[in-house]
Amino acid sequence: MKNFNFYNPVKIIFGKGTIEKIGTEAARYGKKALLVYGKGSIKNNGVYSAVTESLKASGVAFVEHEGVKPNPVLSHAREGVKKAKENKCDIIIAVGGGSVIDESKTIAAGALYGGDVWDFFTGKAAIKDARPLLAVLTIPATGSEMNSGFVLTNEETSEKFASGSAASFPKVSIMDPLVTMTLPAAQTANGAVDALAHIIEGYFTTKDKDAEMTDELVHAIARSVISSTDRILANPKDYNARASMMWSATLALNGLQALGYGGVSFINHAIEHSLSALYDIAHGAGLAIVMPAWFKYDLKISGPERLAKFGKAVFGVTAVSDKEAAEKTISAFEKWFAKIGAPLRLSELKIPAADIPKIAENAMALINMWEIGCDRKSVEEILRKAA
Amino acid sequence: MKNFNFYNPVKIIFGKGTIEKIGTEAARYGKKALLVYGKGSIKNNGVYSAVTESLKASGVAFVEHEGVKPNPVLSHAREGVKKAKENKCDIIIAVGGGSVIDESKTIAAGALYGGDVWDFFTGKAAIKDARPLLAVLTIPATGSEMNSGFVLTNEETSEKFASGSAASFPKVSIMDPLVTMTLPAAQTANGAVDALAHIIEGYFTTKDKDAEMTDELVHAIARSVISSTDRILANPKDYNARASMMWSATLALNGLQALGYGGVSFINHAIEHSLSALYDIAHGAGLAIVMPAWFKYDLKISGPERLAKFGKAVFGVTAVSDKEAAEKTISAFEKWFAKIGAPLRLSELKIPAADIPKIAENAMALINMWEIGCDRKSVEEILRKAA
Repeated sequence: MKNFNFYNPVKIIFGKGTIEKIGTEAARYGKKALLVYGKGSIKNNGVYSAVTESLKASGVAFVEHEGVKPNPVLSHAREGVKKAKENKCDIIIAVGGGSVIDESKTIAAGALYGGDVWDFFTGKAAIKDARPLLAVLTIPATGSEMNSGFVLTNEETSEKFASGSAASFPKVSIMDPLVTMTLPAAQTANGAVDALAHIIEGYFTTKDKDAEMTDELVHAIARSVISSTDRILANPKDYNARASMMWSATLALNGLQALGYGGVSFINHAIEHSLSALYDIAHGAGLAIVMPAWFKYDLKISGPERLAKFGKAVFGVTAVSDKEAAEKTISAFEKWFAKIGAPLRLSELKIPAADIPKIAENAMALINMWEIGCDRKSVEEILRKAA
Repeated sequence: MKNFNFYNPVKIIFGKGTIEKIGTEAARYGKKALLVYGKGSIKNNGVYSAVTESLKASGVAFVEHEGVKPNPVLSHAREGVKKAKENKCDIIIAVGGGSVIDESKTIAAGALYGGDVWDFFTGKAAIKDARPLLAVLTIPATGSEMNSGFVLTNEETSEKFASGSAASFPKVSIMDPLVTMTLPAAQTANGAVDALAHIIEGYFTTKDKDAEMTDELVHAIARSVISSTDRILANPKDYNARASMMWSATLALNGLQALGYGGVSFINHAIEHSLSALYDIAHGAGLAIVMPAWFKYDLKISGPERLAKFGKAVFGVTAVSDKEAAEKTISAFEKWFAKIGAPLRLSELKIPAADIPKIAENAMALINMWEIGCDRKSVEEILRKAA
């Protein structure tokens, strides 16, 4: 078990009818908010009116920044920074899924920075401070509501990069599972795959295979994500399943999921970021394609031990050898992804095998920046297994 | 799944050789510390010198408050408050197990309060503010290093009561598993039982049996505590087992372990506090006696469902019915407690059955204060099952 630091000061307000608390919470931090959201679905499900009425009741003024894309882009984040500065917004409120929260984290830091926010993603500048950020989460998936990281796509360069800082934790995240009751099956599935990916990256790339409490936590989150998703797909109106899914996805990337593992590698994310930067596909869909392929590739390098352990604990795999158990675990992933309607092949998203060199080339920027230690040839090999 | 709030801002610094960071961390919060510790075992295992050298190197002065008892007492906490005030200590540093941290939390709040600290335990006063508290944990058990609660015994009235406040979280807790390598088997076992008790209270008294992520987390912590303890007792020098035990005990009471359960009841703790207040026994030992007895009592009231679920997930129980599984789960607890050397009967600690009415009478104060809704007759019935 490797040494670690853990610190996570996000205040979570979770449950039915909690959105109306946003005004009171926001008023603790400022008087004028930049209200960041996506393409307007919050205006159809009552979330927008709940948020804005609560802000008005608490005397918090707001300027709107609409139109965050599912893969949030640099140009829109820059607009948000400009708007926050011009309107002297002293708080940022994100209402949406991980994309909205990620762009809001960018804006919160950018509002107190003189340069261009892309500097935070290339390593040119570190984030020293940020405007207080509050989030109202509407889609369980990325965990951004309870961590200090965020990603953004530079659409000019097709780079989907990540950033983060101790100043980037939301002060408060409000999570009302009721607003997820109408999420379509595809978004539910994408969120589930994303949450699984977050725990899998650490579990399978750990530098220390003897961190039992964290292994157990990872198994627990995986089982909860899988069982909640199964319940939701069987009955989309199952509140407890929606709630469990929402909380599981948060726990899947709030820092606890990799404690004691030492430095972990986000190889699947690095490859997937290339896919969603180039083809603007859903992050969860891309991960469902990349992960089984990476498992097959990595099995030969890392051996079957971790896959066997995971499969036994999560999928109830039984086998006479670790090798057999590992192979059964990969199959179990593929079967479950197929069951929930996630894609398993690049071809399902109409991404031609001929593009593999280009995808790998793009992925190398992140792989190198994150010092993952995987070469272009290996990335192509992984992608070919997903063709 | 019930609504919940979660907030836990404790910074954890975990691992080998981390104690030397106490000076740097303490210097962020003040210049003069009250250094609180127990009966001096930290002077034999190098912890005292590591802490004091680090404080000196960082220019943090300190006044010592030695002699915290395993069940910390009011008179000694009052002395600590007096010392902190007289010496104008602006930080409190706890070096020890849960008892030392709990008394330090009392002192941290008392140092900014004009009245008597017992007021915090009787409900006469609420804690509004506290001196910054930093902890160096030496015994995994209570979880106090990452929560805002604490207990203290009023030795004049034989009352072991609890308090807590948002101001009572430690700012920083340093956890070096190396210092636990020499913990005797009995203390290891008591710590394991205490950690299990913390997750069990919520799991078995939940107001909502459909909070799957939290159930899974409870199973994960239980399995980790049990497997780590087994490894430690087989090989006390197993660092990874010590580390896993230390982190598991923290997770067992940092708030996550009961999210979504709604109000939970600490019935086993209420009864055990009476035992340790009256007989000054180890908290973990008292809990090992009370819990199986309470399970047997509660099985008739709450039914077998939760016991069956827990036993299947944690002890690998198989059974044809929930009733059979529940009974096997209780047996599994008893067998495991016996295996690790924890007591199962009052008689093992020479507490006579004739004292049961007195113990129950004492327990009623907490049971009523915590609104547990259990009468004296029932407490006596539980205790008779443990006679």
